[in-house]
Amino acid sequence: MHLPHLGHSHRKVVPGTAAGTFVIDPETPKPTIQLMAYNPDTYEELEIESLDQIQDYLGRFPVTWVNVNGLSDSESFTTFGNMFNLHPLAMEDVVNVPQRPKVEEFQDQLFIVSQMPTLGHEHLKEQLSLFLGKNYVLTFQERPGDCLDPIRARVRKGGPRLRNAGPDYLTHAILDRILDTYFPYLDEYGEQLSALEERLFRNPTKADLHRLHQLKRSLEPLRYILLSYRDVFISLSRDETPFVTETIHFYLRDCYDHTLQLIDLLANYRETCSSLMDLYLSSVSNKMNEVMKVLTITATIFIPLTFIAGIYGMNFDPGASRFNMPELGWYWGYPFALTLMVIVALVMIFFFRSRGWLGGSVGPDDDDADKEE
Amino acid sequence: MHLPHLGHSHRKVVPGTAAGTFVIDPETPKPTIQLMAYNPDTYEELEIESLDQIQDYLGRFPVTWVNVNGLSDSESFTTFGNMFNLHPLAMEDVVNVPQRPKVEEFQDQLFIVSQMPTLGHEHLKEQLSLFLGKNYVLTFQERPGDCLDPIRARVRKGGPRLRNAGPDYLTHAILDRILDTYFPYLDEYGEQLSALEERLFRNPTKADLHRLHQLKRSLEPLRYILLSYRDVFISLSRDETPFVTETIHFYLRDCYDHTLQLIDLLANYRETCSSLMDLYLSSVSNKMNEVMKVLTITATIFIPLTFIAGIYGMNFDPGASRFNMPELGWYWGYPFALTLMVIVALVMIFFFRSRGWLGGSVGPDDDDADKEE
Amino acid sequence: MHLPHLGHSHRKVVPGTAAGTFVIDPETPKPTIQLMAYNPDTYEELEIESLDQIQDYLGRFPVTWVNVNGLSDSESFTTFGNMFNLHPLAMEDVVNVPQRPKVEEFQDQLFIVSQMPTLGHEHLKEQLSLFLGKNYVLTFQERPGDCLDPIRARVRKGGPRLRNAGPDYLTHAILDRILDTYFPYLDEYGEQLSALEERLFRNPTKADLHRLHQLKRSLEPLRYILLSYRDVFISLSRDETPFVTETIHFYLRDCYDHTLQLIDLLANYRETCSSLMDLYLSSVSNKMNEVMKVLTITATIFIPLTFIAGIYGMNFDPGASRFNMPELGWYWGYPFALTLMVIVALVMIFFFRSRGWLGGSVGPDDDDADKEE
Amino acid sequence: MHLPHLGHSHRKVVPGTAAGTFVIDPETPKPTIQLMAYNPDTYEELEIESLDQIQDYLGRFPVTWVNVNGLSDSESFTTFGNMFNLHPLAMEDVVNVPQRPKVEEFQDQLFIVSQMPTLGHEHLKEQLSLFLGKNYVLTFQERPGDCLDPIRARVRKGGPRLRNAGPDYLTHAILDRILDTYFPYLDEYGEQLSALEERLFRNPTKADLHRLHQLKRSLEPLRYILLSYRDVFISLSRDETPFVTETIHFYLRDCYDHTLQLIDLLANYRETCSSLMDLYLSSVSNKMNEVMKVLTITATIFIPLTFIAGIYGMNFDPGASRFNMPELGWYWGYPFALTLMVIVALVMIFFFRSRGWLGGSVGPDDDDADKEE
Amino acid sequence: MHLPHLGHSHRKVVPGTAAGTFVIDPETPKPTIQLMAYNPDTYEELEIESLDQIQDYLGRFPVTWVNVNGLSDSESFTTFGNMFNLHPLAMEDVVNVPQRPKVEEFQDQLFIVSQMPTLGHEHLKEQLSLFLGKNYVLTFQERPGDCLDPIRARVRKGGPRLRNAGPDYLTHAILDRILDTYFPYLDEYGEQLSALEERLFRNPTKADLHRLHQLKRSLEPLRYILLSYRDVFISLSRDETPFVTETIHFYLRDCYDHTLQLIDLLANYRETCSSLMDLYLSSVSNKMNEVMKVLTITATIFIPLTFIAGIYGMNFDPGASRFNMPELGWYWGYPFALTLMVIVALVMIFFFRSRGWLGGSVGPDDDDADKEE
Repeated sequence: MHLPHLGHSHRKVVPGTAAGTFVIDPETPKPTIQLMAYNPDTYEELEIESLDQIQDYLGRFPVTWVNVNGLSDSESFTTFGNMFNLHPLAMEDVVNVPQRPKVEEFQDQLFIVSQMPTLGHEHLKEQLSLFLGKNYVLTFQERPGDCLDPIRARVRKGGPRLRNAGPDYLTHAILDRILDTYFPYLDEYGEQLSALEERLFRNPTKADLHRLHQLKRSLEPLRYILLSYRDVFISLSRDETPFVTETIHFYLRDCYDHTLQLIDLLANYRETCSSLMDLYLSSVSNKMNEVMKVLTITATIFIPLTFIAGIYGMNFDPGASRFNMPELGWYWGYPFALTLMVIVALVMIFFFRSRGWLGGSVGPDDDDADKEE
Repeated sequence: MHLPHLGHSHRKVVPGTAAGTFVIDPETPKPTIQLMAYNPDTYEELEIESLDQIQDYLGRFPVTWVNVNGLSDSESFTTFGNMFNLHPLAMEDVVNVPQRPKVEEFQDQLFIVSQMPTLGHEHLKEQLSLFLGKNYVLTFQERPGDCLDPIRARVRKGGPRLRNAGPDYLTHAILDRILDTYFPYLDEYGEQLSALEERLFRNPTKADLHRLHQLKRSLEPLRYILLSYRDVFISLSRDETPFVTETIHFYLRDCYDHTLQLIDLLANYRETCSSLMDLYLSSVSNKMNEVMKVLTITATIFIPLTFIAGIYGMNFDPGASRFNMPELGWYWGYPFALTLMVIVALVMIFFFRSRGWLGGSVGPDDDDADKEE
Repeated sequence: MHLPHLGHSHRKVVPGTAAGTFVIDPETPKPTIQLMAYNPDTYEELEIESLDQIQDYLGRFPVTWVNVNGLSDSESFTTFGNMFNLHPLAMEDVVNVPQRPKVEEFQDQLFIVSQMPTLGHEHLKEQLSLFLGKNYVLTFQERPGDCLDPIRARVRKGGPRLRNAGPDYLTHAILDRILDTYFPYLDEYGEQLSALEERLFRNPTKADLHRLHQLKRSLEPLRYILLSYRDVFISLSRDETPFVTETIHFYLRDCYDHTLQLIDLLANYRETCSSLMDLYLSSVSNKMNEVMKVLTITATIFIPLTFIAGIYGMNFDPGASRFNMPELGWYWGYPFALTLMVIVALVMIFFFRSRGWLGGSVGPDDDDADKEE
Repeated sequence: MHLPHLGHSHRKVVPGTAAGTFVIDPETPKPTIQLMAYNPDTYEELEIESLDQIQDYLGRFPVTWVNVNGLSDSESFTTFGNMFNLHPLAMEDVVNVPQRPKVEEFQDQLFIVSQMPTLGHEHLKEQLSLFLGKNYVLTFQERPGDCLDPIRARVRKGGPRLRNAGPDYLTHAILDRILDTYFPYLDEYGEQLSALEERLFRNPTKADLHRLHQLKRSLEPLRYILLSYRDVFISLSRDETPFVTETIHFYLRDCYDHTLQLIDLLANYRETCSSLMDLYLSSVSNKMNEVMKVLTITATIFIPLTFIAGIYGMNFDPGASRFNMPELGWYWGYPFALTLMVIVALVMIFFFRSRGWLGGSVGPDDDDADKEE
Repeated sequence: MHLPHLGHSHRKVVPGTAAGTFVIDPETPKPTIQLMAYNPDTYEELEIESLDQIQDYLGRFPVTWVNVNGLSDSESFTTFGNMFNLHPLAMEDVVNVPQRPKVEEFQDQLFIVSQMPTLGHEHLKEQLSLFLGKNYVLTFQERPGDCLDPIRARVRKGGPRLRNAGPDYLTHAILDRILDTYFPYLDEYGEQLSALEERLFRNPTKADLHRLHQLKRSLEPLRYILLSYRDVFISLSRDETPFVTETIHFYLRDCYDHTLQLIDLLANYRETCSSLMDLYLSSVSNKMNEVMKVLTITATIFIPLTFIAGIYGMNFDPGASRFNMPELGWYWGYPFALTLMVIVALVMIFFFRSRGWLGGSVGPDDDDADKEE
């Protein structure tokens, strides 16, 4: 079974520690830090070793993007906190994954939590935590490897819109890119639902039922994420905040529209899921009905015949009286009995045909189905 | 199966490109451009070849309607963008179909996305993107051929209300016309549901179940479209915008009312769908019940009879003792056995009749049904 | 089947005509126009022939009520429009029935659409369109005959509250009267649901299932109407409008309360409907269970007995060996076989009784049911 | 059946009378009127005969509580109306019971409608209409006898908080007392649901199904009442009104909290109801399954055995050929046949055991159930 | 059965007493009172005997936390009320447990009700009532023993954030700690649901159905508690109140986020519950289907065979005519009969195989299931 355990809420905080405390698992690999700084004319990109290098870029470029892969190194994490004056609560949310997508305004940054889906892994998501400051964007990911390479390519290629804009546009680009990865991710669900639908129409099996349950179940958490995204983009595109310039609002509203599209899609899938469950149940009922019909027809035809055979298998002594089974001695006795049986069988068959239960009427149904659909 | 694949979210943007990027499939046929310009006294109408022609009409007429069929020609598309100062995000939405119906106010235009149903094609919809400027209406369609000919006819005939009004009234006329095509489109669903209902009342087949599932499933996306329309008309009829004059608000509120009517209709259809599913399931149960009854009655009557026949078919040797099946030698032995069987059968039949399971009580039910309904 | 076709959305507008266009079916009978004008001291009432007569009363009385039965005469309809300066969109809504109940404020009137139920006709409703002006009330009905005679009687009798008040109080009186007719109308549904419930408790038939489906289905449109009424009365009792004086707000809030009562009633009926559907389904399941039990008990008791009889019906030759069915020659052979059968039967019966499947335990259930309820 | 008819909306107004008209059934017993007036130091209490007596107390005491039992006497009712300047619409609501709980502010009073449950009578409720004036509380009940005696006792005992406060505190005390009676009333439902749950877990009968339906059905109206109460207390504790002093707002918010608690309780019961319906249905399915299993096992074991017995009951003439049933003449013929049967039976039993259908696997299930729960 | 009775609303107030009256059960053990007072530099901690001791600490420390375990001692309770000027309504809520989580602002304190879950006891919750004053936090618990020891440890260890902050931060710490205990509490549900899911996929038993019902039922009250918490934190983090400083708002918003996470989790569990119910029902249907298939296949194969055997078991006298069962005397009679039976059986088996009912097609289904999942 590939279903994730329902029993983990993923709160790994040591209970009772002060809010804003972050507990880092010392076994995770050491984080790598990528820095990308650009202005309209040029850009620099490097993997940094010491956090002190960052300060230098902040002063020289209008936009510096620091991306941290992995959450383990407690010490450098504290350094980050001090360097950018990050609020302890935000830092706690960076480490204690997963959090719901949300946006929070602090004194020196806007703090945005988002979840990236991992294509091909139904239940795997990765949290990207983003701090948007006056002249920097700071992102923390759980693992190396992400869906943001196209953005890096645009920086390198010198796409004018991105290179001319501030860190708020970069933030939009990152969030938009993450949203975009949900489309193929949801399409995957759609493909599977379509395949399932096809199978349920034809010949539903128990495996299909389980698959349906799995799909339905894994859509649920996705829904809470997307609804949270909606709130994030509403608040980003409406609220007055010094970190987002007015012109970016159009772009954020566009993200909002995409989120609505995703939510519609998901709602559609959910409806389809419960509709398919109905379909499955009625298919099973139909199948049972068919099984019952075969049993009923066979049994109901042969039971009376067997009874007649039973009658003439009785051992009453014809010699004891002329009433005792004289048929056994008749000249046409056996043919008479066989004829009687045939007549009874025909009457039964006629009765079933009149009720439309015989195979003949099942076939046309299916034919109709094929023709009409 | 006519169901559209669930697996396409129709986002064809190359992932990671800047928002506002439009990717045009080079294989679609070259777009044709119709221009219609009018004032209260006269009108001009032509199919234009070069976009430069447009500028000329804009200056001379209070209302110029430029309609572009097909989305392929990337070059002229950029020219449009520059000529009318269209926002890249809006242009992206024009090309990356389908989008949800929505309205967005930009600096120089109001941008409205709408979806036109294609009568007779349950799942086919076409996006019409509309830019409403100070003195022009610019529409983009996916394919040539639309439902707007009646409006063109009104322009030609010189209907005073349309010819005297500005581009906002033309916009209303276009949106109203599109909404109007939803009524026969939904009626088609209604017809099919009615037919299905009729069939389900009489003799539900598996094909009906599939049809029901299909209808239910294709109502869902329609609902999201109509709910989006509602938001569009709320915002158009309430918001202050320089592109829509006060007097048009009445007309837009009228569109809003029609949208509500459509939504009610759709909600009604959805309720009917799930009510029909219940009906189907209980019909199947009822049918199974009937099948079971026939089996039960036949089996229960004949099994004891066969048992009695079995008894007298045993080969105990009457000669060995006077207890060994003396009935076989009785003078009235065989008639006695037959009478015993008839009595058992009658008792059974009486029992079933008392439970109301015999055909006699099923008939009246159906009669009642016919009379009462 | 009495269900109305689902396939008619009743929009008869010629598609693509300007909004505000009214299309009148020339075959409907010529409308009749009743005029009633009153002041605190006196009243006049007449059926008018020429619309010019109206103008005269408008000047002389504080309240003039013009009631038009039938919507056919296109010419006089236009005259009305001009005389009272009615907005084309409102006039369109008068003719293109049915519209949702709604209220719209125009420059010279308040325009209110309402739906009157027709007692005894589940699916028949009639639209009453009302224009409330400074000194007149103008009502349009689809057919002659309405539920407003009690109001006319109050005008004639000179009820002081009505005769002293303005056209807004008359409007309230008309709307209140229409709302009042919904109570017996809904009671009729209630009666039918109660009867159905009674029948479903006793002995549900297929006809009851169909009836239930019908009731459920015809409640749906009623709900949309009542929800629209609620919006109408919220807006009438809260909005500032020159056509409704402050003192009338109390009365309109009273109508609002009645609408809420109707909505509660309807919600209750809907809940009852789905609860009855559950009841029906479980009744059918129960019945099937009972049928199965009878079959199971009979078959399970007699099949082993028949098997035993079959054993002793075998023809092994006792002469061939002393192992070959020596029982057949025993002195107590037949009694032994019979006793064996009785014992097997008793064991079976004991087993069924221990499972509570025998008639004895079904009876008490029903008795309990009668006692407890 | 104890279910109240669904067909009564209890609107007894003569249709078409002016709103605010009250129609009093002349057969109801003459109302009795209790008066209670108090100040911090003293109180007076009497049953009054003539309404003129009231005026006297109003002048002498800061709080006078007039309680009218029964709604019949039309004349004194009008006198009340004039004496306290009651609005005709409010007076209509007093008489035309039942109304939804609501609060309405008039010029000289606050008018509050509430519903008192009658303990032990599932469907019986009594309307208490309350007018709160500057120095009086006026209550109208349908019948003598209420749940307010504890409040009267507190007045008599001279509880300082009540005696020192104004009529608004008395109003709060009355409403709070009425709300309090809903707790045992709902507990009664809870007891019944618990008992039902217990029975459904053990051995569900048809009577339990009916009881469940009844409970579910009678919870519905209660819900509308409580939701109305919520609105009443929201509006009472928030709205600015001269009739309620600021300090009483705390107490009304407390009532609001209690209403929320009641609504939660009710929502919980409703959920439990539908969960129990599911339980019932699956119990019935389970039972059917068990019945089927017994039938299947018995039939499937004995049918092949009976077939074998049937084989050797055939009368082929062993004398005619050496192929004709030589077994009949074998020395070990009969033991061979019996052994064959035993083997077939064992194979069948093994098959069923491997599928887990035999009694042995049913027992453990139930045991597990008992242990685990 | 471990389900709590539904019939207790836990309102133990003597009906009709003044609101704000507290009734204390004299049998509960005497409450113990713990006091903890701290400033940035030092802290004191003691179990106090006399309430007079408290006053002393209030003057000397910026934060004094008084924790009362047990609610019994009516006298000291009144002393508390007077000492801290607690509102009688709040004191009533402290004693009459359980109340919904809520927050209420009084003149001298903020009053917050919260519910602590008891790990390992599905239905056991304990109310913690908290008064937040200018320089103290006053908590009342039902029983000794709580989840707050980590906070006490932080006070003792001198955690700078807690020791430097005011009583509002302590309040946050307490509420945050309580919220944190819901995570493992909910995880426990998750574990159980996962286990149940596993079992339902494999071999659902009646015990699983009951367990599912129990889980579903006990999630319901939890939901109302969490929704109330959400309202509490919304109001705490937004409302202006002198008892909570601005900087604490961030922390309270963090609690709000955690509540949302809990609510999502719970909603997910509820969805899973109803999805599992569907799964159970369809599993039962599937099982029944399988049982039916075995019965049908066996019966349908053997019934015709037995009939054939019955035919040749008839006793028609071959000597009476040449038509009377000549087969019995044929040389190949018996082999012919057996061959006939084999042919009939093969035809039947072929028929079932063509329908996919034979074991062979059931096996692959399950295999597929295992492979695919």
